[in-house]
Amino acid sequence: MILGERIDCDVLAILKEDALLVEDYLSRHCATENGDLSTLFDAMRYSLLGGGKRIRPFLVLETARMLGVDKQAALPYAAALEMIHTYSLIHDDLPAMDNDDYRRGRLTNHKKFGEATAILAGDGLLTHAFYVTTLGSDPQKNAAAVRVLAECAGPCGMVGGQAMDLAAEGRKIDFKTLQSIHRLKTGALIRAAVSLGAISASAKEKELDALTEYAEKVGQVFQLVDDVLDRFGDASKLGKTLGKDEKAGKNTYLSFFSKQEALDYAEKLTEQAISAVSPWDKSGILKAFAYYMLIREN
Amino acid sequence: MILGERIDCDVLAILKEDALLVEDYLSRHCATENGDLSTLFDAMRYSLLGGGKRIRPFLVLETARMLGVDKQAALPYAAALEMIHTYSLIHDDLPAMDNDDYRRGRLTNHKKFGEATAILAGDGLLTHAFYVTTLGSDPQKNAAAVRVLAECAGPCGMVGGQAMDLAAEGRKIDFKTLQSIHRLKTGALIRAAVSLGAISASAKEKELDALTEYAEKVGQVFQLVDDVLDRFGDASKLGKTLGKDEKAGKNTYLSFFSKQEALDYAEKLTEQAISAVSPWDKSGILKAFAYYMLIREN
Repeated sequence: MILGERIDCDVLAILKEDALLVEDYLSRHCATENGDLSTLFDAMRYSLLGGGKRIRPFLVLETARMLGVDKQAALPYAAALEMIHTYSLIHDDLPAMDNDDYRRGRLTNHKKFGEATAILAGDGLLTHAFYVTTLGSDPQKNAAAVRVLAECAGPCGMVGGQAMDLAAEGRKIDFKTLQSIHRLKTGALIRAAVSLGAISASAKEKELDALTEYAEKVGQVFQLVDDVLDRFGDASKLGKTLGKDEKAGKNTYLSFFSKQEALDYAEKLTEQAISAVSPWDKSGILKAFAYYMLIREN
Repeated sequence: MILGERIDCDVLAILKEDALLVEDYLSRHCATENGDLSTLFDAMRYSLLGGGKRIRPFLVLETARMLGVDKQAALPYAAALEMIHTYSLIHDDLPAMDNDDYRRGRLTNHKKFGEATAILAGDGLLTHAFYVTTLGSDPQKNAAAVRVLAECAGPCGMVGGQAMDLAAEGRKIDFKTLQSIHRLKTGALIRAAVSLGAISASAKEKELDALTEYAEKVGQVFQLVDDVLDRFGDASKLGKTLGKDEKAGKNTYLSFFSKQEALDYAEKLTEQAISAVSPWDKSGILKAFAYYMLIREN
């Protein structure tokens, strides 16, 4: 059984190492010396550099590395993806959306800077992400990366998932619809991550297929475990109030599964994710990451 | 005197012709067959296909044409720019921003679809614009177009101008600051338009410089005339309430100029714009457009 194998690498240490790499890049590429723009950039940097696991850029960089490419080459794409993730959190927290006051133990962007600036900070990060994507060294790859990012983040990807989630709030939906929402809302950016790594390494289509399978399974595990933690987790480890999603009338996997069923399903998906990347010699880190997504407590 | 020359082409007819071309493209490239996403796409299409002069895409297409390139080649860039312009209007109208109920005689997006959907419709259009940019036939040009769009629309461009405008509301600012705001808020997308036309035609740097000068002057004329019309125009021709900007505490050119001074300045800038494109044989349409920006009544 694959999950029985010892996980050989310290995935948390590598997550941290990649996070530092990305944060340094983000800090350098999201800055201005124009005093007139300082409030806007302060607001963008507040959310962009305010913590987070940096899971998506990690997946970009480690996919590239597994495929034999230096992480530096994929860094612009990794940073762009994190900018898009960050913008989505800022807009998601707005009063008209989830109306959250805190994120990661700090005031949300609109609570700190006001709603208008938060909207603009999100718009700014989303737009600037595409600028940063063009900083890769190969224009052809950059164009491919832009397309993947826009597809996965746009109205047929993440934004579409947000819209579906909004429409489903307070309504009873079926399992298939729940899966569609997650596939777009959180899954699409995880798929984008491995695709961006693949683009930087000029991967073949068959390789991309296997990586996409890995990303889809990991994305589902991420959401299953999220839902379990939101009801049964340790609030102090999570740094947030439990049960928020359910209180807000959101549909979760626990509307369909018991805790044990959810975790069994997540385990099965983790095995499939690990299988998908097994053909690569250097897949140890991605395998360990998939396993970490299953057993994480925050 | 340049303005004394007879304007030889019917610029309104060409604006209309280009608008139809762009609207057809937009309609085909902003659509879904996924019923779950229909509300989101309805909201995007409501604003995207709800009228407008289509000035920016016109400038993309006519710059390309002047430089010897078929308009079709520049169409994806023209459409992308209009998507970005449209998203900016949707977000600008939001309650936290300008809080407008009507635009072009119809309900604003958030009044029609609700605030959450309007935020997502804006996000969706902005993201999808970059997807559409990659539909050009040359990936290298597409990457260059993405960079121009992101620079001009992002935090050092249009979004930055919005943030400065927000900060200046109700405060007395100097003329230099007013010009900086307009240079970013409305000027940047007009500069983007001629740059995108130039990219599609692989223009030389010197050509781009002349086109950029044209765009900067036309952008200023656009804003000067906008401010004059907002106070002295014909509400029925404009289709909006007069004096709105000033009532909202916005700084306008009329805080610094009399009506006549503003129009004299606009005339001088128009001459400079026309001069900038004079070296090109086929510059008649861009010249006529600059003149039309000066004399327009809506």
